Amino acid sequence: MPRAGLRHCPAGAGMLELPFLPFCALLGGLGAVCVAFVSAWCQRWRGGFAWDGSAQMFNWHPVLMVTGMVVLYGAAALVYRLPFSWSGPKFPWKVLHGALALVAFGLAVLGLVAVFSFHNAQGTPNMYSLHSWLGLATVLLFSCQWLAGFVSFLLPWAPAWLRALYKPVHVFFGSTILTLAMVSCVSGINEKLFFSLKNGTTAYSQLPSEAVFANTLGLLILLFGVLVLWALARPDWKRPEPDSVDAHQPLLSAER
Amino acid sequence: MPRAGLRHCPAGAGMLELPFLPFCALLGGLGAVCVAFVSAWCQRWRGGFAWDGSAQMFNWHPVLMVTGMVVLYGAAALVYRLPFSWSGPKFPWKVLHGALALVAFGLAVLGLVAVFSFHNAQGTPNMYSLHSWLGLATVLLFSCQWLAGFVSFLLPWAPAWLRALYKPVHVFFGSTILTLAMVSCVSGINEKLFFSLKNGTTAYSQLPSEAVFANTLGLLILLFGVLVLWALARPDWKRPEPDSVDAHQPLLSAER
Repeated sequence: MPRAGLRHCPAGAGMLELPFLPFCALLGGLGAVCVAFVSAWCQRWRGGFAWDGSAQMFNWHPVLMVTGMVVLYGAAALVYRLPFSWSGPKFPWKVLHGALALVAFGLAVLGLVAVFSFHNAQGTPNMYSLHSWLGLATVLLFSCQWLAGFVSFLLPWAPAWLRALYKPVHVFFGSTILTLAMVSCVSGINEKLFFSLKNGTTAYSQLPSEAVFANTLGLLILLFGVLVLWALARPDWKRPEPDSVDAHQPLLSAER
Repeated sequence: MPRAGLRHCPAGAGMLELPFLPFCALLGGLGAVCVAFVSAWCQRWRGGFAWDGSAQMFNWHPVLMVTGMVVLYGAAALVYRLPFSWSGPKFPWKVLHGALALVAFGLAVLGLVAVFSFHNAQGTPNMYSLHSWLGLATVLLFSCQWLAGFVSFLLPWAPAWLRALYKPVHVFFGSTILTLAMVSCVSGINEKLFFSLKNGTTAYSQLPSEAVFANTLGLLILLFGVLVLWALARPDWKRPEPDSVDAHQPLLSAER
């Protein structure tokens, strides 16, 4: 009965027999391209960066959100997929997972400060668009996720039953928050292009180079996010847990 | 070694011991609410429906996209999760899955006709926004998914090795296309509200009742989509396959 436990598993199993580390390098490159694209968009077409309530302060918003909520968040999510995290104590990898997520969260908070400060300085209302509702909800969900993860998995006195109960919830919301971050980024880029490309510039509908560039950025963010979700769902890239089939049946795991 | 094969499985396993059918009823209700919300938005605030190249023809676009690419697509995706599809021949359920997906695809094509006809009648350019790029890519991916699924799983002469090879790809793109449809819907609603709520009406930024209503629609679509993705990922709601642990080890499956 070879591989029996795996046939019952999710999307993507056995889809490609790709080793994790080359995939990881590809994903890292794609994440760097996303950060480079969003920075280049704001630098070349939107006037660059400042921290003074101006439109240049707003420009930090897309850069920090894409870098924090998508790229660094994706890196944090994939820590336990690194094969060299599978042997030895789990604690240092938990700390790395939590630390990367905390940096991602910090960048997201700075990204929110950038947009709220810009709006307040310009007298623009906050929190009316669907993008803003969804984006704030995503960051709030992320804060709950981080806190609950910290309390359950990093504090030494959390009971084992709590960890076992909460873990699938944490895993599920991990993927969900990344999905919502992707939706927030795409709706935000779309909204920003409608705002920016009108009077005094080539209209969005004429598809100037800025529009092609930023539309491409949106698609690259989706590609990065979908690849992270795919890697997270692959059963054979998961860290074997002490009570899993791999730990109990070395012959089965060797066969894979 | 009870439940060993399952511990290796994905997000949401054991998160809630919810029976599928009540969940399905809840999801059906939520899907109906999404269709009712998008129809009410277009009827009450956007002038209702027509098929004449006017703004009323555009209104079919959100209604058909939400109904086809999200609600009916979600229903098609969940066919194999119905417990009464697990016994007896699989073929009728395959036909139901393919037929629901085909109806969903037909509605999506009509939804595209609605927006292209409106643009052409008004002299508005097509295919410039990120929403339009992503939306069209999603429908094109869906057409490939449907055709490849039909050729591999419904035509009787498809070899078993092709089905086995393609199945995880089909499953993965099934969830991915739903995710992309959610992103398309949210970016489209956001864009439409910026278009509509300006000159001659209360601005979007003043958050009139239409904006609250349509923002809520966007969040409901995301809730529906995330619940479908969650149901798809739950290992214990999957149809036991002939070569899975459930089929070979009745004791193990009875234990669950």
